[in-house]
Amino acid sequence: MNTPLPDPPTLACIRNAAARIAPFAHVTPVLGSASLDRIAGATLFFKAEHLQRVGAFKFRGACNAVFSLDAARAARGVVTQSSGNHGAAIALACKLRGIRATVVVPRNAPQVKLAAIRDFGARIVPCDPSQHDRDRVTAQVLAETGGELIHPFDDPRVIAGQGTAAFELLHQAAALDAIVVPVSGGGLLSGTLLAVKALNPAIEVFGAEPEGAADAWQSLRQRRHITDMSPDTICDGLRAHLSERTFSILSDHCDGILLASDDEVRTAMRLLFERMKQVVEPSGAMALAVVLRERERFAGRRVGIVLSGGNLDHSAVSAAPGHG
Amino acid sequence: MNTPLPDPPTLACIRNAAARIAPFAHVTPVLGSASLDRIAGATLFFKAEHLQRVGAFKFRGACNAVFSLDAARAARGVVTQSSGNHGAAIALACKLRGIRATVVVPRNAPQVKLAAIRDFGARIVPCDPSQHDRDRVTAQVLAETGGELIHPFDDPRVIAGQGTAAFELLHQAAALDAIVVPVSGGGLLSGTLLAVKALNPAIEVFGAEPEGAADAWQSLRQRRHITDMSPDTICDGLRAHLSERTFSILSDHCDGILLASDDEVRTAMRLLFERMKQVVEPSGAMALAVVLRERERFAGRRVGIVLSGGNLDHSAVSAAPGHG
Repeated sequence: MNTPLPDPPTLACIRNAAARIAPFAHVTPVLGSASLDRIAGATLFFKAEHLQRVGAFKFRGACNAVFSLDAARAARGVVTQSSGNHGAAIALACKLRGIRATVVVPRNAPQVKLAAIRDFGARIVPCDPSQHDRDRVTAQVLAETGGELIHPFDDPRVIAGQGTAAFELLHQAAALDAIVVPVSGGGLLSGTLLAVKALNPAIEVFGAEPEGAADAWQSLRQRRHITDMSPDTICDGLRAHLSERTFSILSDHCDGILLASDDEVRTAMRLLFERMKQVVEPSGAMALAVVLRERERFAGRRVGIVLSGGNLDHSAVSAAPGHG
Repeated sequence: MNTPLPDPPTLACIRNAAARIAPFAHVTPVLGSASLDRIAGATLFFKAEHLQRVGAFKFRGACNAVFSLDAARAARGVVTQSSGNHGAAIALACKLRGIRATVVVPRNAPQVKLAAIRDFGARIVPCDPSQHDRDRVTAQVLAETGGELIHPFDDPRVIAGQGTAAFELLHQAAALDAIVVPVSGGGLLSGTLLAVKALNPAIEVFGAEPEGAADAWQSLRQRRHITDMSPDTICDGLRAHLSERTFSILSDHCDGILLASDDEVRTAMRLLFERMKQVVEPSGAMALAVVLRERERFAGRRVGIVLSGGNLDHSAVSAAPGHG
C-alpha cells in the first residue's frame, strides 16, 4: 500500500529554483540551424544544456537541491547514486557550497564522467550496475555518514531545478508550439511539464525515449507504472525507470512519449556534429532523433528541443577529430 | 617594380560591410568556459565563427564582396579559387544574390567542403594543388566567363568583411586586452587589425600560425614578404602565403605572430571538443593553441579568440562519436 504522493512542485518552486541557482548555473544559449530546420521541415530551437556546467542539465536540479539544504543538514554532506552526470552535478554543487559529497557509481559508468566527479572533490563509492546493488550501497553510505540523499530524479527539489531549463527556454524562444525533452527517470520531463503547462498549457510537451528503454512509453500507454524492463540502448543517460512520482506527473500532463532507435540517435548526433558543430552525448541527441522521426507531427511548427548533455566517454572522444 | 597598394579598408568600410551582410550573416555568439579559463590562466572570449553560415568566418568577406558588386558585374557571375571554406562562402553568397558562381578547387580539398560548394549550386572546376596551377585555371575561367574574381583574402572587400567578426566581438565582450586570430593569407588578421586598431589601439592583436606554415611569422621577423615556403601542417585552412596587401597591413599594425605545432592544435581541438562541446576544424583551434602555448603572455588577461571554422572532412567526422 502506497502512501499518497505529496503535491508536485509548483511554478513558484521552479521560479525559486531559478533564483537559487542563478549565481552558479549558466543561462544556456538557444541555438538554431537553417540546415537542420530544412531537414526537419520545422523551426527548431535547441536549448543548449550540453553547455551547462558539468556539461548537462543535471546541474540545475543538483544545484537547487544542494542549496535548498539548511545549514545543519548541509554539514552532514550529500549522498547520491548516479550513472554519471547527476553525480558530477552533485559533486560540483557541493564543492560550490563547501560541503562533502559521496557518489555511488556503477562500475560500468563512462570514465569521463567518473573523472569529472573526482575532479570536483567528491568521494566515489563503486557498486554493481543493478538497481538493487545501487540502493544497497547507497543505504549503507547514508547510514555511515548521516548525509542527505539527493536522488537523481525522484526528488521535488531536483524536479523543480530541472524545470528551470524550460522556464528559461520559454523566455528565450517566443511562440513555441511544442517542446521535446529526453525521458529516463522523468526528472527533466516532469520539471518541463510543470513549468510549461503552468505558463502556457497550449504548448505540447513530449518525452523522447529510446526504443530499447521504453518504460515511460509503455507505462503511459498501459496507464500503470512499469518498472521491470531491461534497458538496451546506447543512450547511457536514459536507462532508468520512472518513479511513482514522475509517473504521476507524466500521467497528468504529458502529451505523449515518442520513440526513436539507437540508429536514429546516431544520425541525430551526426547532424548536430556536422551541421551545428555541437558535441552531444547519445542521450543529448534523443529529442532531435524523435523530431526527425515524427516529421509529420512537427511539420511547419516551432519546436523547442533540449540538448540535454554533452559528456561523451573518453573512448569515443579519442576516436574523434583531431586524433586521426 | 610594384605599383603602390591602394589604401587599406577603413573602419567605415568595415561598418558598411557589417550593414551589408547583416541580412544574411549570423551575429555569432561569444562562448566562454570556466574550465578552459583555468587551463589558460586567462579569461577567454571565444567568437564562435564555426557557427557562422557555411561554418566559417569566410562567409563574412565573401558576402560583403558579392553584395558589393553592381548589377552589371554581378550578372557576369563570380569566380574564385579556394581550398574550401571561401569557396562554399562564395557559393552561398552568390546563391543568396541569385548569380552564378564558379569555384576553382584543388583536387586534394576536403570532401565535405566540396560537397558544401556543390550543394549551394556553384560550378566546381578542379585544378592541381600548386598555386601556379590554381592561378592558371582561375585565369582561364575568368577569360571564359567574363566573371568577377573574388580572391579569398587579397581583396579589400573581403578584408573589410572579415573585419566584421572582431567589430562584433568588441561589442559583445567588454574590456578585452588582446585578440588572437589565425593567419593564413592574412584576410581575417588584416580585417581584425583594421577594425580593432581603429576602435581601440590599446588592444593587442596577434596572428596565430602553424609552425609548419610560418610564412607570416618569418615575413614580419625579416621585414620582407616571403612567398616561397612549403606548408606542412594539419591546418588545411592555413596553408596560404600573405599577399603584398596583407603583408603591408600586418607590418603596419600587428603586435606579433605566435606559433604552435600541429600537436598543440590537436590538443586545443580536443579541449574545445571535451570542455566546450564545440566542433572546430584544425585551423579553427589555431588561436587557442597559441594562447595555451604562450601562457605567460596572456596570464590574467581578457583575451578574444576567434574560432574560425568548424568544417571537418567526412573522414574525420565518420570516426567521430556516435559512429563507434
